[in-house]
Amino acid sequence: MKIGIKKSGIIIIGNEILNGKTIEKNSNFLCRKLSDRGIEVNEIVIIPDQKENIIEKVNLFRKKFEYVFTTGGIGPTHDDITSESIAEAFNVRLELNLHAKKILKEHYSDEAFTKARLKMAYLPENASLIDNPVSIAPGFFLENVYVFPGVPKILEIMFVEFIKTLEKGKKKFQIMLSTILSEGIIGEFVGQIQKQNLDVEIGSYPYFKKKSFGVTLVIRGYDKNSIDNVAKKIFDYIKLKKGNPKLF
Amino acid sequence: MKIGIKKSGIIIIGNEILNGKTIEKNSNFLCRKLSDRGIEVNEIVIIPDQKENIIEKVNLFRKKFEYVFTTGGIGPTHDDITSESIAEAFNVRLELNLHAKKILKEHYSDEAFTKARLKMAYLPENASLIDNPVSIAPGFFLENVYVFPGVPKILEIMFVEFIKTLEKGKKKFQIMLSTILSEGIIGEFVGQIQKQNLDVEIGSYPYFKKKSFGVTLVIRGYDKNSIDNVAKKIFDYIKLKKGNPKLF
Repeated sequence: MKIGIKKSGIIIIGNEILNGKTIEKNSNFLCRKLSDRGIEVNEIVIIPDQKENIIEKVNLFRKKFEYVFTTGGIGPTHDDITSESIAEAFNVRLELNLHAKKILKEHYSDEAFTKARLKMAYLPENASLIDNPVSIAPGFFLENVYVFPGVPKILEIMFVEFIKTLEKGKKKFQIMLSTILSEGIIGEFVGQIQKQNLDVEIGSYPYFKKKSFGVTLVIRGYDKNSIDNVAKKIFDYIKLKKGNPKLF
Repeated sequence: MKIGIKKSGIIIIGNEILNGKTIEKNSNFLCRKLSDRGIEVNEIVIIPDQKENIIEKVNLFRKKFEYVFTTGGIGPTHDDITSESIAEAFNVRLELNLHAKKILKEHYSDEAFTKARLKMAYLPENASLIDNPVSIAPGFFLENVYVFPGVPKILEIMFVEFIKTLEKGKKKFQIMLSTILSEGIIGEFVGQIQKQNLDVEIGSYPYFKKKSFGVTLVIRGYDKNSIDNVAKKIFDYIKLKKGNPKLF
């Protein structure tokens, strides 16, 4: 059943998220794009700009998942330590990447090509570049670890182009269904249906609007017939209970 | 140096975040509140509603950090498996908590007290309740693991009351400083200052506004004199470089 399903993990790097200063925006974007491509996200971890921690997580994730995506820490400043951490994780040298140096030097030809800017061209040995059409400083990948910047506007444009190069995974089908009944009322029935249909995954999410509340059920699976069948059973039950079911 | 500093980890539980359907909002709220209380967040992990995964992370985190906070998975439906997973992690029974049952039964006295609703009163043996003024269903804690619901509106009100019961940690001081110069220009100098002042943590964050860009530096530490001193050195350097430094 799990054949063709690609698993991935995301590592978000940055003190500014852990101390609450910055709201983390990249992981939701990545989850949506990966899901559209048929790649499951199985774990997200947010860690500080600290070398040992990055090395540990990269080594753990690259064994565990088919794809690992990191964001953050590849800029020109002292707290940008992702590239050197990844080189250490893979036990390779951090070296001046001549292609990266060339494109950065051209980009900064009107300005000072400072030591700090040159720092962005130091990448792990044998890294392949990922194009950055916004601020030029490239991302890179090494085996199954894909390294992106943390600034959402830059990451997003880079990722939309990059993801076209990844093989598509098996697509999940999905049906959403809402009701004005609460989880406490429909929960037992939905739980039984879930037990009888283990190839389908039913998520139950209460919602609160200004003047109403209810539940949205998300029914997902790789087999279209199974999810149609489950959705019909739940729809009929809610209708019987006068729960105003809506499919969308 | 690390005496009095309290470390914590956050475990966010929910498929809906990993498949991109829901934007995760609880961790930033928790990070801000914990930081205000002098408690550092050292790691956030987002995992699916899957028992083995929850058990593994809870057992890892409760050994590693002084406080562990979880959100999600304590509602009335089949996909709410946090309580039973935590019971298993601690190797204790999941039992009907009579106090939780009583307050839930009273709350639902006008409505059906269904089996699904009763499910929310099954908690790990010896768990202590955490009050929920919004939807009554309590959170709980067991040793250093604190368990909250996933709905942000409910979690937020619960947490604001709850955190008053946690001992305050050592407060970090912070100075923020912005400049119109880019990271590539100031990066080398700031990096040198960082190397010379290891008790201070300097974060460098580029910003992009509609018509301008620049960098905000965040200087943090437990010693007020050290951060004042570092801020002054960087301020003077930026002023010299005509970088329009601003403290805020």
